[in-house]
Amino acid sequence: MSILENVNSSADIKRLDREQLPQLCDELRQFEIENIARTGGHLASNLGTVELTVAIHRVYDTAVDRLVFDVGHQSYTHKIITGRRDRFDTLRLHGGLSGFPKPCESVDDAFIAGHASNSISVALGMARARTLQGADYDVVALIGDGALTGGLSHEGLADAAGSGEPMVIIINDNNMSISENVGGMAQILQNMRIKPAYISLKQCLRGLAEKIPGLYRLIHNFKEWLKSRLLPGNMFSEMGFCYLGPVDGHNLDKLENALRLAKDMKKAVVLHVLTVKGKGCSYAEAHPDKYHGVGCFDPETGELAPCSTSFSDKAGEYLCQFAENDERIVTITAAMSGGTGTECFAAKFPNRFFDIGIAEGHACSMAGGMAKQGLIPVFAVYSTFLQRSFDMLIHDVALQKLHAVFCIDRAGLVGSDGETHHGVFDVCYLSAVPGMTVLCPASFQELHDMLGFALHEVAGPTAVRYPRGGAGRYTDSIMSAEAVIREGTDVTIACYGTMINEVLNAADELAGKGISAEIIKLGMIMPNSFETCISSLLRTGRLLVPEEVCSAGCVGSAILAAASVAGVEIKAAELLNLGSGIVAHGTVEELRHDMGIDAAAIAAAGVEMCRTDTERA
Amino acid sequence: MSILENVNSSADIKRLDREQLPQLCDELRQFEIENIARTGGHLASNLGTVELTVAIHRVYDTAVDRLVFDVGHQSYTHKIITGRRDRFDTLRLHGGLSGFPKPCESVDDAFIAGHASNSISVALGMARARTLQGADYDVVALIGDGALTGGLSHEGLADAAGSGEPMVIIINDNNMSISENVGGMAQILQNMRIKPAYISLKQCLRGLAEKIPGLYRLIHNFKEWLKSRLLPGNMFSEMGFCYLGPVDGHNLDKLENALRLAKDMKKAVVLHVLTVKGKGCSYAEAHPDKYHGVGCFDPETGELAPCSTSFSDKAGEYLCQFAENDERIVTITAAMSGGTGTECFAAKFPNRFFDIGIAEGHACSMAGGMAKQGLIPVFAVYSTFLQRSFDMLIHDVALQKLHAVFCIDRAGLVGSDGETHHGVFDVCYLSAVPGMTVLCPASFQELHDMLGFALHEVAGPTAVRYPRGGAGRYTDSIMSAEAVIREGTDVTIACYGTMINEVLNAADELAGKGISAEIIKLGMIMPNSFETCISSLLRTGRLLVPEEVCSAGCVGSAILAAASVAGVEIKAAELLNLGSGIVAHGTVEELRHDMGIDAAAIAAAGVEMCRTDTERA
Repeated sequence: MSILENVNSSADIKRLDREQLPQLCDELRQFEIENIARTGGHLASNLGTVELTVAIHRVYDTAVDRLVFDVGHQSYTHKIITGRRDRFDTLRLHGGLSGFPKPCESVDDAFIAGHASNSISVALGMARARTLQGADYDVVALIGDGALTGGLSHEGLADAAGSGEPMVIIINDNNMSISENVGGMAQILQNMRIKPAYISLKQCLRGLAEKIPGLYRLIHNFKEWLKSRLLPGNMFSEMGFCYLGPVDGHNLDKLENALRLAKDMKKAVVLHVLTVKGKGCSYAEAHPDKYHGVGCFDPETGELAPCSTSFSDKAGEYLCQFAENDERIVTITAAMSGGTGTECFAAKFPNRFFDIGIAEGHACSMAGGMAKQGLIPVFAVYSTFLQRSFDMLIHDVALQKLHAVFCIDRAGLVGSDGETHHGVFDVCYLSAVPGMTVLCPASFQELHDMLGFALHEVAGPTAVRYPRGGAGRYTDSIMSAEAVIREGTDVTIACYGTMINEVLNAADELAGKGISAEIIKLGMIMPNSFETCISSLLRTGRLLVPEEVCSAGCVGSAILAAASVAGVEIKAAELLNLGSGIVAHGTVEELRHDMGIDAAAIAAAGVEMCRTDTERA
Repeated sequence: MSILENVNSSADIKRLDREQLPQLCDELRQFEIENIARTGGHLASNLGTVELTVAIHRVYDTAVDRLVFDVGHQSYTHKIITGRRDRFDTLRLHGGLSGFPKPCESVDDAFIAGHASNSISVALGMARARTLQGADYDVVALIGDGALTGGLSHEGLADAAGSGEPMVIIINDNNMSISENVGGMAQILQNMRIKPAYISLKQCLRGLAEKIPGLYRLIHNFKEWLKSRLLPGNMFSEMGFCYLGPVDGHNLDKLENALRLAKDMKKAVVLHVLTVKGKGCSYAEAHPDKYHGVGCFDPETGELAPCSTSFSDKAGEYLCQFAENDERIVTITAAMSGGTGTECFAAKFPNRFFDIGIAEGHACSMAGGMAKQGLIPVFAVYSTFLQRSFDMLIHDVALQKLHAVFCIDRAGLVGSDGETHHGVFDVCYLSAVPGMTVLCPASFQELHDMLGFALHEVAGPTAVRYPRGGAGRYTDSIMSAEAVIREGTDVTIACYGTMINEVLNAADELAGKGISAEIIKLGMIMPNSFETCISSLLRTGRLLVPEEVCSAGCVGSAILAAASVAGVEIKAAELLNLGSGIVAHGTVEELRHDMGIDAAAIAAAGVEMCRTDTERA
């Protein structure tokens, strides 16, 4: 008989006997594997935290207590437990459940998650609010050891340690971020792992003290002495936390006991839990990085559905080619060698490849130092994660006009990861970076040629931005900042990157309706004085600019401003973009349709714009 | 006889006898106090690092070795030593020496500095470049303990520790950032400070080993055992660094010996140096925060030249007033309570004031957590430092439409701190933040009214941005997103913030020449559909938008884009702004003149624009 079927809240978990929990965990794992196999999603991280999540729900009430996930890759079990089991087959699908915690989805989701290392800061803010308001709830941050490489987590740790705020920081230590963990923080955790367990002794003493209250002081002193013997060199306790652990993250009893202890302490506690990523699923345990974020797969064998060649794959391949002939080229990744296609570079040039962990700011500042001394650093990074490097990009690269190359992957809409992962702000924030060059390839050949151009022909900070997935109808390579790729007389349509595929289809549709569209493809969106666009506008008088970015700082408004300053008369202009930039999850096609930036919407805007004034009135 | 007069390089320092060094340090201190008293600048931090800087120049050649300053507040001694003594009286003045390291100023300045916590990342990049290129120079990062609260430094530390790269990280530990240091990192350093000194014993053993080579292994083992006894719980050694220290930062012999030891180790070394901020100057030692960054002062008594009331002072005062009546209001600063005028809030509401150290990202994420639980967090921060929070602002505040208020101080040109500190990118990057509201007060009364509006009438992330210094000619308060404050027929001039003072003067000048300017004051630059601007443009046909921000994403281009989409015919438009945003140091008046955004330049642009087409041809 299924236990899971009757679990719809924290309260249901608490009602179960301890003996029922292992079966519940088995059912949860099976349920997750079956569902993720169909929808895709984050497999290994969720399998690794089944027991931990169940134990948290035994001790806390997440509808009232605040459980703050970090990144949120490991929130599936929590979602299933808190009343979303029936909709779990819609995970990451258009209109379905999000793959990340979302307060709008459930009161049990305390905060949004998506980018790493913020959970301690957020939880501390909540704990401080709780205390100031005299409220009575617990605050828990759940952070993976991978996210501890991010500097933001250290800012949070330093403040939380000195704050005196009761809160529990659970470190889910699986020795992985998305790739294997690296650097000094990993070393610190490694040291802790091999130290003798302290927590069970502590609990035993605590039980004793409760029975014989007079003994408390004596036992407390003994505990402190013991701690200093057993736990030397612990960064967390040096900072001022009560450190508990390490605890076996797959032992439900130990987890539950440790969580109760941590909760009852009413102090700032770090609870160190050891888990195995992919636990209970042979293929995911054997290859946790491969089964971190997956598309559809065979739940029996783990065989993944084949992927077509992506811009990421090609970027890695071309980088290797260029690096073969130029020893100055080095590549940096922030724990995303798989996602950015740079694993081949790592294999071929191990000394020139730097996986610096989840630390995008550092990647950028380090690239500045490398460039200053004569290397050509390439930082391969998702658009959304480069947001973390914004200040470092200005200060440590741009102000000194240093030549660093940014392979900006996942630019534009990314699909099922949704609002926290779309790369839709970069065109705006990169435009503020002094001397920034941004190239926008639309085909694999163009990626090759523009990457070569970025590496060897451009000075200063240079980005090559390309989307998730592969190329479309456009397969040429035009190395020009602005190129008229189809002449027309009624309306000018300017675009960049793979949006060209939608625009070509739209222009075909318009042609069928007797409207002649001039298509201008922007190979380089900054710097660009848009002279070709302006000259086209002088002829057509109408401008359409479809873009997969937020409206603020979009290229369309830069073209319109340039045209106005140049004194061009504009009869009609329409900027088709993503507005505020908050876009939910779904396939890229579904989202383009929703946001009115697909071929049909572009054509419709063109038709509307070309109706005569009389018709429109 | 002066020793300093004959010092123009690292080499000159090396030629001196050790006995001459104390006199040199005295002369350096005297020279700095006398000069800074006239030019203003960073006093206490430089006085604290005189011996350390001299010792560095005894051991390293900064023209070849790379000395990477963090923030650079403490670079004056270095500048004086490396051939810039004669120009030191131009420090921070228009056309003079920069107050921060600048590679364009000297080959001895390895890298730009200005924002905290990047030095380890930059130095690691340089060290990796050096090793890959087979070059032979040393790399040294000099970082204050205050900058260690910034997460970026931890990202750098974690990577450097695991890198195997020979480099020396000097921690200048004075127990201060700009205010007094806070949090867990400070606690860790505090623990180290009280541990028995280890370095002199180590040096002694090293000397012995050199004399009797056979003993090396034995002594090495003994040292390791000794280290484990004397230095338990050291975060740096746990990460993988060779940790040396703490060393008295005012003892030249000990410093020089420790630096030589660190250099010769050819490993990743952390050298922990204890200094006293303000050392050797009674008033600066007594009040290091007051004498951190100063204007002119009396070198004898330390009496500071009086300051007129600033927007910062008023912001702090008004925040106290609003907080008096609303318990939800809390204030956050990132080690800048003095600069942001929030010391009064700290005094009045100590439980509701959070100085979280140099950690702007954390401040923003924590504010998100606070807002989610019902507080109204106010983060008082300089525009330039908020760049570090860009991603956190989007994720932890904006995506969830949380109501956090940002008092953005030092918006626009800041004067003598120069290019690393101007607040000229915020209008662009804030425009990308979904649902962002940005209010721009131009007078103290408006600051009061807009702050109240931001706290109680607006939803979502809300910024109130105001400049360094005080108000000008404009003293009204107009609570309107767009207001025509002077009617005119020939040209529309739109502006926001204290730029109104230049615009009013320009309009007067234009009126004298028979040109009638309509002035539109934007109280809220986002969101804004610019309908009043557009309607004015329909009448005048000409637009002038002077702004103290970079050209990308400026308000002027947003107005022009909106006007174009609305189908307005524009006869002439001119956007007067800071172009790429890189602007040197000088007074704000000098810089506005240089950049062509002062009253004279605005008037000149208006005249040019209103000449008839015939005249212009």
